[in-house]
Amino acid sequence: MSGDDGARGCGRTGGRRIAVRLEYDGSAYRGSQFQENGPSIQAELESAIAKLTGETVRAAFAGRTDSGVHALGQVAAFDTGCRLSAGELVRGLDHFLPEDIAVLVAAEVPGVFDPRRDATGRTYRYRIHTAPVRSPMRRSRVWHVGQPLDVAAMSRAAQALVGAHDFAAFAPPFEGSTSRTLRRCDVSEDGDEVAVEMEAQAFLPHQVRRTVGALVEIGLGRQPEDWLRELLQAAKPSSAGPAAPPCGLYLVRVAYDGLVFGPGE
Amino acid sequence: MSGDDGARGCGRTGGRRIAVRLEYDGSAYRGSQFQENGPSIQAELESAIAKLTGETVRAAFAGRTDSGVHALGQVAAFDTGCRLSAGELVRGLDHFLPEDIAVLVAAEVPGVFDPRRDATGRTYRYRIHTAPVRSPMRRSRVWHVGQPLDVAAMSRAAQALVGAHDFAAFAPPFEGSTSRTLRRCDVSEDGDEVAVEMEAQAFLPHQVRRTVGALVEIGLGRQPEDWLRELLQAAKPSSAGPAAPPCGLYLVRVAYDGLVFGPGE
Repeated sequence: MSGDDGARGCGRTGGRRIAVRLEYDGSAYRGSQFQENGPSIQAELESAIAKLTGETVRAAFAGRTDSGVHALGQVAAFDTGCRLSAGELVRGLDHFLPEDIAVLVAAEVPGVFDPRRDATGRTYRYRIHTAPVRSPMRRSRVWHVGQPLDVAAMSRAAQALVGAHDFAAFAPPFEGSTSRTLRRCDVSEDGDEVAVEMEAQAFLPHQVRRTVGALVEIGLGRQPEDWLRELLQAAKPSSAGPAAPPCGLYLVRVAYDGLVFGPGE
Repeated sequence: MSGDDGARGCGRTGGRRIAVRLEYDGSAYRGSQFQENGPSIQAELESAIAKLTGETVRAAFAGRTDSGVHALGQVAAFDTGCRLSAGELVRGLDHFLPEDIAVLVAAEVPGVFDPRRDATGRTYRYRIHTAPVRSPMRRSRVWHVGQPLDVAAMSRAAQALVGAHDFAAFAPPFEGSTSRTLRRCDVSEDGDEVAVEMEAQAFLPHQVRRTVGALVEIGLGRQPEDWLRELLQAAKPSSAGPAAPPCGLYLVRVAYDGLVFGPGE
């Protein structure tokens, strides 16, 4: 989320800029961004591109996801001199990517396209499992809270966060403005799961997971419904408490003006 | 499915008979039943019981699931001399079971209870993924067919199977009667998935997966809608073609007259 390295390296190999939408299971990775000391989504994508095209490229990502966080609709971009069609890129990368990462669609985009800076919206979903016993089929896919939650109270409390606010309380100490505009914070229940879905142009580091952590405190009755409002007003870094674990978090989609990944692109 | 060994060993240690409902991810196992040459759900459950109670018991299962097949509601039973409550058994076994197996509920049952023979209904669900690209989050959880299916044709065709029939075509050569009564065979669509849900008191080996394999042939337009009716009439072993892969199959629930696993049992 820091610096202006969103599209660093793009343009190096000339040719076309390609945007791809990625789904991945983040369980086995240190996060989306390249790490010297462990596997990353970026390194796997760049490796697959190299195997397919013979080119060494740098892929830029729309959003930085932490170790263990998943994506259903991450967006990345890279430049390539190859003449493969969008469909050939999807099928070719599929061949070289590991089974926990897939390129769902690819599209040629203007050479100025920057997946991070040009994003007009990011949607995250967080899945909480409330049944008393953990679910083996959903391990590493949900946060097993294992207790009933007051979803109505969580939903009402969440509305205090919608709009333009100083979200300092929902992030660790952060250099730069902690003001963000949250467009949506919806809490819903489906069977033995509670989902929190949040949408904004941009989020602070850990903002979604710390918001979920605070909402669960309210859902368990440990904090009053108006606690989030107090946290916003005090704007004290980290005061919302610990972040919910990464395994329940999904980057669902990233929106751009004028960029539509249609079927067959 | 063969023989009358459903409750073999139960009664050996005296005391109470306990029934448990299990959820498991079958990906890492050779199947539900004990195997000399590989991990099984039964061996893991019996090992957890031994660690918890100090007793060597044999657990009997309601349904035999193959290697890679999952369960959301398998039922097993064992005898124990321990005095742990149902809740203590659930929490204690949870501690000793691996992360891909969980005991969801436990209940004391009459000493004559046999999870296999007493079952009055078994429900299986099969998940088919139709999107062009595989889903990393759903790997080992769905069959990635990767093509659109004619769900209406599949649904109509499936109705020919409902009722009492000779299902020889939907099983490998089988000793004994191949007559079964299928209570329900529902084909439904939800987003990029097609689900087939089947319910009967008992199934032939591989019957659900071979039925799904045949339904997909119809959904792809490779076989006509009335093909299943022809297969039933000819009753020729294996003629329905190959089984769908195990990873998409879930044993959803097993029903018994008078046995209800309620919350807190």
